[in-house]
Amino acid sequence: MANTTIKFSSKPVLKNPILIEGLPGVGNVGKITADFLAASLKAEKFASVYSEHFPPQVMLDDECVIHMAYNDLYYAQNVGKEGIDIIFLLGEYQGTTPNGQYILCKDLMDEVFLKMDISTIYTLGGYGTGLMAENPRTFGAVTKSSMKTFLEKKGVLFSPGEPGAGILGASGLLLGMGDANNINAACLMGETSGYFIDHKSAIALLTVLEAILGLDLDKSDLELKSHQIDELTAKVKEYEVTQKKEDLGYIG
Amino acid sequence: MANTTIKFSSKPVLKNPILIEGLPGVGNVGKITADFLAASLKAEKFASVYSEHFPPQVMLDDECVIHMAYNDLYYAQNVGKEGIDIIFLLGEYQGTTPNGQYILCKDLMDEVFLKMDISTIYTLGGYGTGLMAENPRTFGAVTKSSMKTFLEKKGVLFSPGEPGAGILGASGLLLGMGDANNINAACLMGETSGYFIDHKSAIALLTVLEAILGLDLDKSDLELKSHQIDELTAKVKEYEVTQKKEDLGYIG
Amino acid sequence: MANTTIKFSSKPVLKNPILIEGLPGVGNVGKITADFLAASLKAEKFASVYSEHFPPQVMLDDECVIHMAYNDLYYAQNVGKEGIDIIFLLGEYQGTTPNGQYILCKDLMDEVFLKMDISTIYTLGGYGTGLMAENPRTFGAVTKSSMKTFLEKKGVLFSPGEPGAGILGASGLLLGMGDANNINAACLMGETSGYFIDHKSAIALLTVLEAILGLDLDKSDLELKSHQIDELTAKVKEYEVTQKKEDLGYIG
Amino acid sequence: MANTTIKFSSKPVLKNPILIEGLPGVGNVGKITADFLAASLKAEKFASVYSEHFPPQVMLDDECVIHMAYNDLYYAQNVGKEGIDIIFLLGEYQGTTPNGQYILCKDLMDEVFLKMDISTIYTLGGYGTGLMAENPRTFGAVTKSSMKTFLEKKGVLFSPGEPGAGILGASGLLLGMGDANNINAACLMGETSGYFIDHKSAIALLTVLEAILGLDLDKSDLELKSHQIDELTAKVKEYEVTQKKEDLGYIG
Repeated sequence: MANTTIKFSSKPVLKNPILIEGLPGVGNVGKITADFLAASLKAEKFASVYSEHFPPQVMLDDECVIHMAYNDLYYAQNVGKEGIDIIFLLGEYQGTTPNGQYILCKDLMDEVFLKMDISTIYTLGGYGTGLMAENPRTFGAVTKSSMKTFLEKKGVLFSPGEPGAGILGASGLLLGMGDANNINAACLMGETSGYFIDHKSAIALLTVLEAILGLDLDKSDLELKSHQIDELTAKVKEYEVTQKKEDLGYIG
Repeated sequence: MANTTIKFSSKPVLKNPILIEGLPGVGNVGKITADFLAASLKAEKFASVYSEHFPPQVMLDDECVIHMAYNDLYYAQNVGKEGIDIIFLLGEYQGTTPNGQYILCKDLMDEVFLKMDISTIYTLGGYGTGLMAENPRTFGAVTKSSMKTFLEKKGVLFSPGEPGAGILGASGLLLGMGDANNINAACLMGETSGYFIDHKSAIALLTVLEAILGLDLDKSDLELKSHQIDELTAKVKEYEVTQKKEDLGYIG
Repeated sequence: MANTTIKFSSKPVLKNPILIEGLPGVGNVGKITADFLAASLKAEKFASVYSEHFPPQVMLDDECVIHMAYNDLYYAQNVGKEGIDIIFLLGEYQGTTPNGQYILCKDLMDEVFLKMDISTIYTLGGYGTGLMAENPRTFGAVTKSSMKTFLEKKGVLFSPGEPGAGILGASGLLLGMGDANNINAACLMGETSGYFIDHKSAIALLTVLEAILGLDLDKSDLELKSHQIDELTAKVKEYEVTQKKEDLGYIG
Repeated sequence: MANTTIKFSSKPVLKNPILIEGLPGVGNVGKITADFLAASLKAEKFASVYSEHFPPQVMLDDECVIHMAYNDLYYAQNVGKEGIDIIFLLGEYQGTTPNGQYILCKDLMDEVFLKMDISTIYTLGGYGTGLMAENPRTFGAVTKSSMKTFLEKKGVLFSPGEPGAGILGASGLLLGMGDANNINAACLMGETSGYFIDHKSAIALLTVLEAILGLDLDKSDLELKSHQIDELTAKVKEYEVTQKKEDLGYIG
């Protein structure tokens, strides 16, 4: 633990919480979804995670107050129909180096998650296809084949060997480390082009999580942002079509 | 502390000292200011900081005597109207890698600054704008919004979200680590083009520090250097104007 | 051992086992040979090796079940005429950085291999010559000159100073660390072009290992794959010859 | 000491030995000189230094026996008129990274050199000038100005601020670490073009060391190699002159 400092502001007592990770990644789908879910559930921060593996930098807000690069741990209690407790791993950064990412996940697993007796891990991410999806799907990867039936019922799609490149960063490592500690873990990935921050994919992913947790959230804020981006994309497309016609004009 | 070696030549007993950091950075504004202030106050060295994260190198002076790459800690007692004690963090280098910079700051914070009960942190730096400023201003960033009124009275300007790129290196990290330990901390940044060593910006920054500490220093040495650079810059400009005219001559 | 985590699923009691390493490398000759030998001997996994020095990533199989990047330790007992016990070091990855590779080998040596009283080390690899070999040979390198007579009788060729570039990665480091602990160690290298996965070279290397261990294995699976690749190579050659003739046609 | 392993084959009892370092560097002047001096004095190896910071690799000799990348410690007793004891730090490699070099030197200093009560440090190197020197000089750098008179009498030249780039690697770091532990230390640098292995510069440096240690060694082997290189260089020059004349022929 030489490299990671975890500062607890409180020590919540939770009953076999599930862990939901949503750090930055492809299309920021995982981050948007986890941040929105944590805010909707009024989750409370209980720890900050500092590390030499985050960028050596502070950022300023509009008040000229600085914020250091770190990850945060939040919790929510008695969520959904089944009264589930949840720990959230949120933040603006992942480790800046490959072994930095490993160390961060390992220290959190050993020093926090295992000690708090987590029962299941859901890591959230995006599956970048390079294509725009009208109705983005949610893909899954699991540590045990037996988890698939449950997740398929909640709307998760399992496509043999996809994503072919595997799962990078915290979303992958927490699965592997969960498995090594006999904790069921799944990565839920919203289909996304990967070219921009994808709120539409986040809504689809959130719908799956609602089904898993037995929740029904007000997603209108996300839907508004999603529509705005749809409109923007439509305009870009229209412009491109016009350009193409003009280009053809030169030839004909 | 495996990576950092702190060699104490004395162990001064100080009453809640403030910490002033002035390591190399944009326009070297922070370093010039801190070095000058420490020299003016006849601050004494009490520790040298060695680290694997500095360049693996020694430099030679005119006597062929070698000097290793390290940082130094100085102190001054009973400074200004209010009799403040000060610790200075000075040196020729910052860590050569991102996590090296973090480790250096963290080891100093944990092993020296917290143990010596520092009360406030001022990190000094330059805010590189890419433009020459006739009357360079001093910008601020703080760990608590409540610090701003005091600093504004001393001449510090707070501009929403500036600098947009945040604050890198020791000047940023010590703020974040101060905040994590409930110590008030501010970064004071002299406006500078960032293109050369900027004594004029250092004078402006020093004037703010004089106001904060209740001091009135003889700054004539700095002013002399500032004038020399002003003259040099004027000549370069004049030359450029002449060149432009000649260039136009070719066209007309 | 801060960087390496070794998870034991069982603690086999072995009598002065030999260690056989076959991690990825030139032509994957060492990996193919060690994997095939371990499978033929029905070796059992007894430990998984996790490390920050493997890629921070999990891979998916056809069932969408994730697999983390790690090395595995297997064992087989009472092998061959002389009833030798064997430990296998197998896996999909080596460390991603030079010092990561060193740390992995050192931690395994200190925490597992020395404690299990290994008697001899055979590291398996490929010797990339850039040329296709009709009958690939098996080259050797040893920690003690006295080991050569025994190995030459088993079919190993010692060619002064070859390979000129030395031996990189685990296959080299385990030799050096074996030597530092007074354990006899040899690297056995199948001659290979290095341009593709070379099953033919693996068969030659396996034949040497059979002689060393007093074994006679069914190698028909490897031979089938080797023939398939031979056929593919023949077709590529034929195509190239045809192309050349056509090219000449243009000139003539 | 997590990163460095020092294997002692014996523990010689020496009386305030001096340390002579000669690892690879500019023109290999330091290494040639130290290797030659150690061999001439029939110095004995007493420890091998292993580290993750050396290349992860073993080399083969003509007997196909492997040699790992490490540094060695040798000693010689009762040397010269004054009966001085000497420790030699020799080897084929320096650390592959900046902080690896620092860690190696620091671990050796703390775990070996300070414990063996070294009295003085001489690090040997080359001073690359880019020019061929008919009679290469030996430049010096010291930790204390008071050391200069003694060394000047032995033939060392002190030129203000040279080398301007400072001293890199073990030759520099051991000086800095010696100084931090109040041990007198000097770097002796043979003048060299830096373009090839420079035996002539090594002879000059060795002559200075003979004067310091009160020795008179048979340097005929070094002189032979130096002459061979001189002849080679002369031929290259001659060829260049001929080429130039021919080139002029084309113009005239």
